[in-house]
Amino acid sequence: MEKGTFAQAAQVAAVICPYVHYVHARLKQNGASALLSLTRSMVEQGVPLQQIVVNDRVDVALLTLVGAVQLPANGLPVADVKSLLPKGTRCGVSVHSLKEAQTAERVGADYVLYGHIYETHCKPGIVPRGLAQLEHICRLSNIPVIALGGIQPHHIPELYRAGASGIAVMSGIWEAESPVAAALEYRRMADLVVHNL
Amino acid sequence: MEKGTFAQAAQVAAVICPYVHYVHARLKQNGASALLSLTRSMVEQGVPLQQIVVNDRVDVALLTLVGAVQLPANGLPVADVKSLLPKGTRCGVSVHSLKEAQTAERVGADYVLYGHIYETHCKPGIVPRGLAQLEHICRLSNIPVIALGGIQPHHIPELYRAGASGIAVMSGIWEAESPVAAALEYRRMADLVVHNL
Repeated sequence: MEKGTFAQAAQVAAVICPYVHYVHARLKQNGASALLSLTRSMVEQGVPLQQIVVNDRVDVALLTLVGAVQLPANGLPVADVKSLLPKGTRCGVSVHSLKEAQTAERVGADYVLYGHIYETHCKPGIVPRGLAQLEHICRLSNIPVIALGGIQPHHIPELYRAGASGIAVMSGIWEAESPVAAALEYRRMADLVVHNL
Repeated sequence: MEKGTFAQAAQVAAVICPYVHYVHARLKQNGASALLSLTRSMVEQGVPLQQIVVNDRVDVALLTLVGAVQLPANGLPVADVKSLLPKGTRCGVSVHSLKEAQTAERVGADYVLYGHIYETHCKPGIVPRGLAQLEHICRLSNIPVIALGGIQPHHIPELYRAGASGIAVMSGIWEAESPVAAALEYRRMADLVVHNL
């Protein structure tokens, strides 16, 4: 993303944030400078710090004092991360198997992000892990499991039935014609399920 | 690198470190966990903290309390990095032009790493920047300029004549049959030049 694009993305994040619990700042192909700019743009646009999750870079989280960091599978160890961050900063770990989920729980992760559940062009050529495996992991985990990957609003009921504590969406919102309308639709469906409406 | 390889690389670093000023811990293709493991292995093997430079990841530098961080062109801003690190931690910036070198100096970098000077298979297909440009940058810089890229021991006299304050070597040492013998040869040549022997 270019600098102008950060400001645009941050503006969208600010409009969306009342309808989601967290906004994940993640720029896999760029350097730390870009991630810091994006995160600061989000703060300037009014996204509350407690709703921002910074991907991988604990240094960026320290500079911005966001509410959470999301550690990739090859990220820093949870205990080390917690030793650096202010008390109360949440620490999630991205996992791709039951074994990884159990390890993350043992080392003190606050939640895990598990996926990808459905086919998604974010992970071309990689077989999705599916609902059965999600259910298995949720049953054996004592920390929240957030489902990720190819999730459309109509998937939400089966994901919660499988035990997911929440869902994370990338392309479904960010590549939608109207990211705000898309976020609202995900939220409407999640509310229907969670509140048994 | 695999975990066993870290221990090996760290052992070599420990043997080399009396003959160099700094050892740069850099694993461009791996995650932060690997960089932390490599850095900790170096410390365990006896490389003094003040001689270790961690690449890019300020969080890893904070966890290990090494003497310096090396920021890539797309890395975190120097002022932000200095606000996080213990006072006295050196902060270098990798630059590829006079403009970048002057910006780095203005924002408080302690030194710049400039390259690549000669052809190197670390940067295939990228035209080397050469000695004339190095000399130009050294003349207009008030902070040390460390030359990098394809440097062989016989290049050292012309690099110092061009104004370089030091040299950095990757493949010339790490891909040598004997990294220790290679480091000694670089050091011998640098001593000849610096002390006019």
